[in-house]
Amino acid sequence: MPLKRWLVGDPLKSTQLVHERLSKTIALAILSSNSISSVAYATEEILLVLVLAGTAAIAWSIPVSLAILFLIVALTLSYRQIIYEYPEGGGAYVVARNNLGVQPSLIGAAALMIDYVLTVAVSVAAGIAALTSAVPSLFEYRVALGLAAIIFIIVINLRGVRESGKFFAVPTFFGIGVIGVMVGVGIIQTLFGQADSFSPDHRTAVEELTIFLILRSVAAGCTAVTGMEVVSNSVKAFRPPESKNASATMIWMSLILASLFMGITFLASHGGIQPKTDETIVSQLARITFGSGALYYSIQAGTMLLLILAANSAFAAFPQLASILARDGYMPRQMATFGDRLVFSNGIIVLGIIACFLLVLFHGDTHALIPLYAVGVFISFTLSQTGMVRRWLTKKGPHWQTKLIVNGVGAVTTGGGIIIISSTKFTHGAWIVFLLIILLVFMFRSIRSHYKAVTEQIALTRDHRPPLPRRNVVVIPINGVNQAVIRAVDYARSRPGEIQAVMVDVDAESTARIQIQWAQWGCGVRLSVLPCPYRSVLSSFLDYVEELLKKEPDTWVTVVIPEILPAHWWQGILHNQRALLLKTALLFKERVILTDVPFHLKR
Amino acid sequence: MPLKRWLVGDPLKSTQLVHERLSKTIALAILSSNSISSVAYATEEILLVLVLAGTAAIAWSIPVSLAILFLIVALTLSYRQIIYEYPEGGGAYVVARNNLGVQPSLIGAAALMIDYVLTVAVSVAAGIAALTSAVPSLFEYRVALGLAAIIFIIVINLRGVRESGKFFAVPTFFGIGVIGVMVGVGIIQTLFGQADSFSPDHRTAVEELTIFLILRSVAAGCTAVTGMEVVSNSVKAFRPPESKNASATMIWMSLILASLFMGITFLASHGGIQPKTDETIVSQLARITFGSGALYYSIQAGTMLLLILAANSAFAAFPQLASILARDGYMPRQMATFGDRLVFSNGIIVLGIIACFLLVLFHGDTHALIPLYAVGVFISFTLSQTGMVRRWLTKKGPHWQTKLIVNGVGAVTTGGGIIIISSTKFTHGAWIVFLLIILLVFMFRSIRSHYKAVTEQIALTRDHRPPLPRRNVVVIPINGVNQAVIRAVDYARSRPGEIQAVMVDVDAESTARIQIQWAQWGCGVRLSVLPCPYRSVLSSFLDYVEELLKKEPDTWVTVVIPEILPAHWWQGILHNQRALLLKTALLFKERVILTDVPFHLKR
Repeated sequence: MPLKRWLVGDPLKSTQLVHERLSKTIALAILSSNSISSVAYATEEILLVLVLAGTAAIAWSIPVSLAILFLIVALTLSYRQIIYEYPEGGGAYVVARNNLGVQPSLIGAAALMIDYVLTVAVSVAAGIAALTSAVPSLFEYRVALGLAAIIFIIVINLRGVRESGKFFAVPTFFGIGVIGVMVGVGIIQTLFGQADSFSPDHRTAVEELTIFLILRSVAAGCTAVTGMEVVSNSVKAFRPPESKNASATMIWMSLILASLFMGITFLASHGGIQPKTDETIVSQLARITFGSGALYYSIQAGTMLLLILAANSAFAAFPQLASILARDGYMPRQMATFGDRLVFSNGIIVLGIIACFLLVLFHGDTHALIPLYAVGVFISFTLSQTGMVRRWLTKKGPHWQTKLIVNGVGAVTTGGGIIIISSTKFTHGAWIVFLLIILLVFMFRSIRSHYKAVTEQIALTRDHRPPLPRRNVVVIPINGVNQAVIRAVDYARSRPGEIQAVMVDVDAESTARIQIQWAQWGCGVRLSVLPCPYRSVLSSFLDYVEELLKKEPDTWVTVVIPEILPAHWWQGILHNQRALLLKTALLFKERVILTDVPFHLKR
Repeated sequence: MPLKRWLVGDPLKSTQLVHERLSKTIALAILSSNSISSVAYATEEILLVLVLAGTAAIAWSIPVSLAILFLIVALTLSYRQIIYEYPEGGGAYVVARNNLGVQPSLIGAAALMIDYVLTVAVSVAAGIAALTSAVPSLFEYRVALGLAAIIFIIVINLRGVRESGKFFAVPTFFGIGVIGVMVGVGIIQTLFGQADSFSPDHRTAVEELTIFLILRSVAAGCTAVTGMEVVSNSVKAFRPPESKNASATMIWMSLILASLFMGITFLASHGGIQPKTDETIVSQLARITFGSGALYYSIQAGTMLLLILAANSAFAAFPQLASILARDGYMPRQMATFGDRLVFSNGIIVLGIIACFLLVLFHGDTHALIPLYAVGVFISFTLSQTGMVRRWLTKKGPHWQTKLIVNGVGAVTTGGGIIIISSTKFTHGAWIVFLLIILLVFMFRSIRSHYKAVTEQIALTRDHRPPLPRRNVVVIPINGVNQAVIRAVDYARSRPGEIQAVMVDVDAESTARIQIQWAQWGCGVRLSVLPCPYRSVLSSFLDYVEELLKKEPDTWVTVVIPEILPAHWWQGILHNQRALLLKTALLFKERVILTDVPFHLKR
């Protein structure tokens, strides 16, 4: 407990929950890290596919990025409209539930949850890659470093929102700033011919440059647009006029994203930079632009910070979504419980554990995780946009045709994205995501139907009080005559009803001794001795209770357990744990009431 | 449960426990595997040390083995005397407790326990080495194979003694037989010059041939005598006249051990065989003697079976010792409980788990485990012999001087063994054993003092019945008005005493709703609403109970918990587990009685 307090801080009162509204600048810092940080790996993913067709194919990265740029524009315009239509925040789950029905909304929720988990895993893996590009000796510890980063983020988030707000603006702007400076200086160097001449090592093609390969590189590049939905989910957090401010922030975010992504792709393509296992594209670019001095290290540090913050942003979004689902009955109720520090602690912990598991499973390798990443994001994009299309068709309203076209283009583009991604990456891991979505939707529905069944079963029918057994038999299991047993007997005797003590005959000698002692201390309570041919005290006693229940149908059987409790928890292993086993077994019998009479040892 | 039945068999009645007395032949088979199986690795351990001083130093293996031979003779004569003095079985613990006092007996018990654990780990590792020498492709799976072997032995032992008795005689004699044939044929080939000429690859010395190195090889060879104490522990199991039969069996065992060990060492030394990482000495000898045909494979199979049976023998000895210690109060009482199948199941499982752990920790490598092995054995030897010396000095009796000299020589020889082993192998792992012995003795003493403290605290003082609180307040925590709650209220109302319902105010709206429902269904029971500023329902309620206990010093507080129980265990994760947490927390409060009123869901 003191450890928990030190890590997480003292509990906060419910009344301390005030909604801090964000200014545009702070909102840009907090909400854009997820989206902008993808520039750290998106270009690299495109090049990794193209280089399969040899060094010359890298020139194709420019047209591929232009396709991604179109996607960015389409998404920005589409999400602006969602921002105005859903000022209370419009994630894929909300928009789909509102316009498309339950099943699509659950698919959207499942896709979003997978997306958030992968955001954490991919961003942390890429952040650690930025670190190990700068300090190669740390490369072999990348999984451990990634786990440490996730645990750090978990703790920060369990401490609560307030401390993670403004606190994170500085590193985000630092990260955006240094990458921006790098892109700017790199472009000036290129234009004025000052760039280091850099002759790439020629790689031979292992695949032909087919349309399919180019589509695969588009699919890989789609990771650039992950996180673009974040602003539209958080409109409520802005200062009024909320929608206007959110929309402006969204446009700024898209501009930064687009220029950094296009800049990096242009520089990498122009400089003939090729992907390496142990150094990222951004690190190579930074080295060419600035050498290996302080400026280089600031860029790596900035990239890493930006990526860690992107992971952090999922820790706000996932628990929020889980709590909405829990309130609707699709997730365990614990997910909707506020913890000590006014955050959804359970959601934070679940997300952290799954992300750690993924990181270990994929050896902290960004490229291995990427094929899984984009699928979920694009499913949620498409559901949101399709939902909006449906909305305009039914609701209409001013300028609905234009709005319909904007969201229609968004829906078609992102739907096309799904087709491209799933057809080119299906065997690389995308199938896992489809399978998981089906399983999650099934889980959501099962949970809801369970809760519904419970509510029906415990509901009180008007004017009808359920009848109860009329008699009560008290049974006290004993294994000796001592203070704990006497205490239980005296407690039982202070209440009305028939009492009987029961012991199991494990060893004839000690049974005889206990019977003699009982004559003195038993206060006239009858002591039955049960045979125990198989030496299982527990099952002999359970058989006895079973028999009693069968014999007396209209009777409660109250089992009064004399329980000896050790003074220290570790002494527990020296006791037989029979009381615990007994209680667990009896709990599942109808008409049995369990009563614990504890006797506390002092040492 | 069906899995358990299938693996372990149906429970046996206590009356089915009959002591099957062993004939000399069967006893030899069952009790000698531990001791004789050490020929599979003892020679190899000697050579591994000597070869450090170059190929020529291998000639020293003959004098080193003669020292071990002397040890075998001394131990045989010493243990014969223990067999006659302790016909009820005389392990180091019993002999030391009888003659030297508590502290030495606990040291002996600790040494024996460590010995048994290592017997399992070493024998299984060496058995798997015999297998992988014959089938090298299995070498990389040696840890997994070892674990599978241990689990198989655990299951066999949990099934009970009867099935593991005669059943094991055949493979033991097969193993002894084939190794004997190999040694015989090998010696004949050598004497008549038919042996394959075998030119060993010359190895350069990495250490000088010092006295210290030779002592180290003696220490390594001491593993040959491990397991020699087994017969003296099990005198009771023989047919009458017990001591005479046991003594004869012991002598046969020693003769077989001595001749196989000396034979293998002679052949290895004469044939210039050197230790290899992936093939045992015995396997190399078998290959030279018989080529790579069926005979070779029978020898490897026989060796492996013998070693697996050696591991099996520890599964009889360890639980037996643990149960004796448990009866004396030095181990948790569960260790003295007979399981379903009339065996000490807990001891079997504990031994199996620790051995598996060791096997994984040392990567299934016999040589890495050996330095730990001999220390424990020799400590128990020395304590037994010293105990006997003390016995002759105090008890005297006929021919006591001769007997004193025999055990005295045993004590001095084995004591010398400890000094040699610990001085040459201390840094190779022997220190772990000393440390473990200290820790185990400390544990034994702590457990005993705990049990003593418990007995004192729960003892009834004559004529004095401890006074109990006079009043009783019933508290029912509720979080809604439903059938489960109404059931608990009705149960509480059927008994005398003041009743109050208590709810925690998490959410103002639902609190108001529950209060209205309570007016209809509460039967006039007062409902208190507790504030809950930190959203922890549990701690708010605990504070309330604490308050109540403080306010009313002479009162029981009976907490009646309405508990909703799911129909299937996996549904448990969808419920808040608050009842369980509440029960755990309340268990540790004085004067609180816990009463569970379960409500069982049907679906």
